[in-house]
Amino acid sequence: MSDKLVISIDAMGGDNSPRVVIEGLAIAAKKNPDANFLLFGDESKVMPILDSYPNLKKVCEFRPSPEVVHNEDKPSSVIRNRNTSMFMAINAVKQGEAQAVVSAGNTGALMAISKLTLKTIQKIHRPAIVSIMPHRTGRYIMLDLGANTECDALNLAEFALMGNIMAKHMLDIERPRVALLNIGAEEMKGREEIHQAVKIIKNSHLDMNFVGYIEPHEMPEGKADVVITDGFTGNIALKSIEGTAKLVVRLIKDAVKKSFLAKFGIPFMFGVGLNIKKVMDPRLYNGAMLVGLNGLTVKSHGGTDALGYSYAVGNAIRLARQNFVATIRDELEHVDLDELSQEILYDAY
Amino acid sequence: MSDKLVISIDAMGGDNSPRVVIEGLAIAAKKNPDANFLLFGDESKVMPILDSYPNLKKVCEFRPSPEVVHNEDKPSSVIRNRNTSMFMAINAVKQGEAQAVVSAGNTGALMAISKLTLKTIQKIHRPAIVSIMPHRTGRYIMLDLGANTECDALNLAEFALMGNIMAKHMLDIERPRVALLNIGAEEMKGREEIHQAVKIIKNSHLDMNFVGYIEPHEMPEGKADVVITDGFTGNIALKSIEGTAKLVVRLIKDAVKKSFLAKFGIPFMFGVGLNIKKVMDPRLYNGAMLVGLNGLTVKSHGGTDALGYSYAVGNAIRLARQNFVATIRDELEHVDLDELSQEILYDAY
Repeated sequence: MSDKLVISIDAMGGDNSPRVVIEGLAIAAKKNPDANFLLFGDESKVMPILDSYPNLKKVCEFRPSPEVVHNEDKPSSVIRNRNTSMFMAINAVKQGEAQAVVSAGNTGALMAISKLTLKTIQKIHRPAIVSIMPHRTGRYIMLDLGANTECDALNLAEFALMGNIMAKHMLDIERPRVALLNIGAEEMKGREEIHQAVKIIKNSHLDMNFVGYIEPHEMPEGKADVVITDGFTGNIALKSIEGTAKLVVRLIKDAVKKSFLAKFGIPFMFGVGLNIKKVMDPRLYNGAMLVGLNGLTVKSHGGTDALGYSYAVGNAIRLARQNFVATIRDELEHVDLDELSQEILYDAY
Repeated sequence: MSDKLVISIDAMGGDNSPRVVIEGLAIAAKKNPDANFLLFGDESKVMPILDSYPNLKKVCEFRPSPEVVHNEDKPSSVIRNRNTSMFMAINAVKQGEAQAVVSAGNTGALMAISKLTLKTIQKIHRPAIVSIMPHRTGRYIMLDLGANTECDALNLAEFALMGNIMAKHMLDIERPRVALLNIGAEEMKGREEIHQAVKIIKNSHLDMNFVGYIEPHEMPEGKADVVITDGFTGNIALKSIEGTAKLVVRLIKDAVKKSFLAKFGIPFMFGVGLNIKKVMDPRLYNGAMLVGLNGLTVKSHGGTDALGYSYAVGNAIRLARQNFVATIRDELEHVDLDELSQEILYDAY
């Protein structure tokens, strides 16, 4: 099965599963005729819906799973239950039956089972959560968005290596501009691990277009294609961005409601709304990726619709098609980041 | 002079000084008849403008300063030059001639001279940069926005103490809801210093309405009146918010330009624009405050206009009028945060 592109699917995760999952798969299958799916879930719920998508059914293999991970389940308990659709879907990647797994279920559980089952790639110390984000004229990718509360310089350098490969595959950019998130452009601004990461990246002979620091307000301007940060800072930035975008849209809606005159302007503004949606629609950015493991885990938002789910599956397909994990391994064969970071840390004292 | 409300002004800082400074002062003086100003700057430039504002002139005392801090000057060199308008303006606070100082000049220089000259309040270990921010239905204050790249639990607890007092004075809220910025609501999410800060605040017997953690996307919803974080994270959040607000507004403008129909809707949307400006206009939030020193330093944006500058002066007046520094000292007389933090850190090991 190794030459065939296979994505493993937890059909039971998310708010309206398995319906949204299967409808989303149908969209993704149409866009990606080379993709095959291995579906895990409750047979009595999955099959009736799958039956109404004959074209999808042709590229699907279904395997019943007796149990389901619930939203309130603790990661510590779910990692012991091998009978859930989530566990079985992830395990299929470990067994080499699929290259990636997609789930819309419990994030903590998904991350915990993935880390435990798939394990980090040799020479990669920490996995990272990656997402594609909109900027004014395109998209960029950002990592880590929350897998690691604290990161050292070596972790950041490894994220840069992975992010660079991801941007090539996901954004079709030949030489992505890779930048480290910081609070200033000057060399000595920000935290020590960021300064050290610069040294590791610059001395690593990685084939990378490293452009230095980026500040958060430069991200929406499209100043970099890959933004590297630790999971705490990345999560703070991501949620600040999401919250502010929502606030501005909300303020506009509130103001339109309050204004008698504005109501007459709404029909004229229809195209404006559509254009903004083309850039900002969260469904287009659905599918956060856990990278750095031997296999790829994609987390779909639990509340998304079929179109949103199809984008998460699209991310999985795209990286699996390009042999993402193998590419990272190849790159690491020529570079010893670990040794380099020890030299640089040693120099610092 | 101690009973009189006096604000010291660096008339030479900023892009269009001293014109914008004096025009801004005129607005602030009209709104605050009890305020007096001590102006430092180039006599040949300041006096001709000041002469055209006779009402302002009555509450101003001018003192010539022979030199000016330039934008490209390094903090390390400006702290040695006691002849600049910035240095002299800050020094007036140290000498007890004014309670607060406002400058639109070089941020690094302003912070460096302030720290060196005014020194931290006894029992406060680190000053913090504070700003007022908009949320959907009001305003909140956030600190630290960049004075300290790394903060320990004690620093965060001290910021909470100062932020609480500031919110009472600046936002007129009797019991401000004080929250710590974090990446999740659960107790064990985020970094260790945040967990320890919770313990210090809860055990401090500070009279404070502490509401626990807040996530960045909850800030624009108005879930807290005071948001506490370290200077690195605060700066990241602030710039993410600013960048995203700009992006969304830019996307709307771009989309309106592209849409033939939308142009006809613009006149109807006039009121909407005004309403949003009422909330989002950066001039209304001008005037970042450096707190924790024996005297208050307010940094106006260098590129703001007279209205924006008047808001920075307004912040200085407001805190000076309420005897902000003395209030912090009073509060710290009854609370030993230092001892408490040592107990808690000791418990942790």
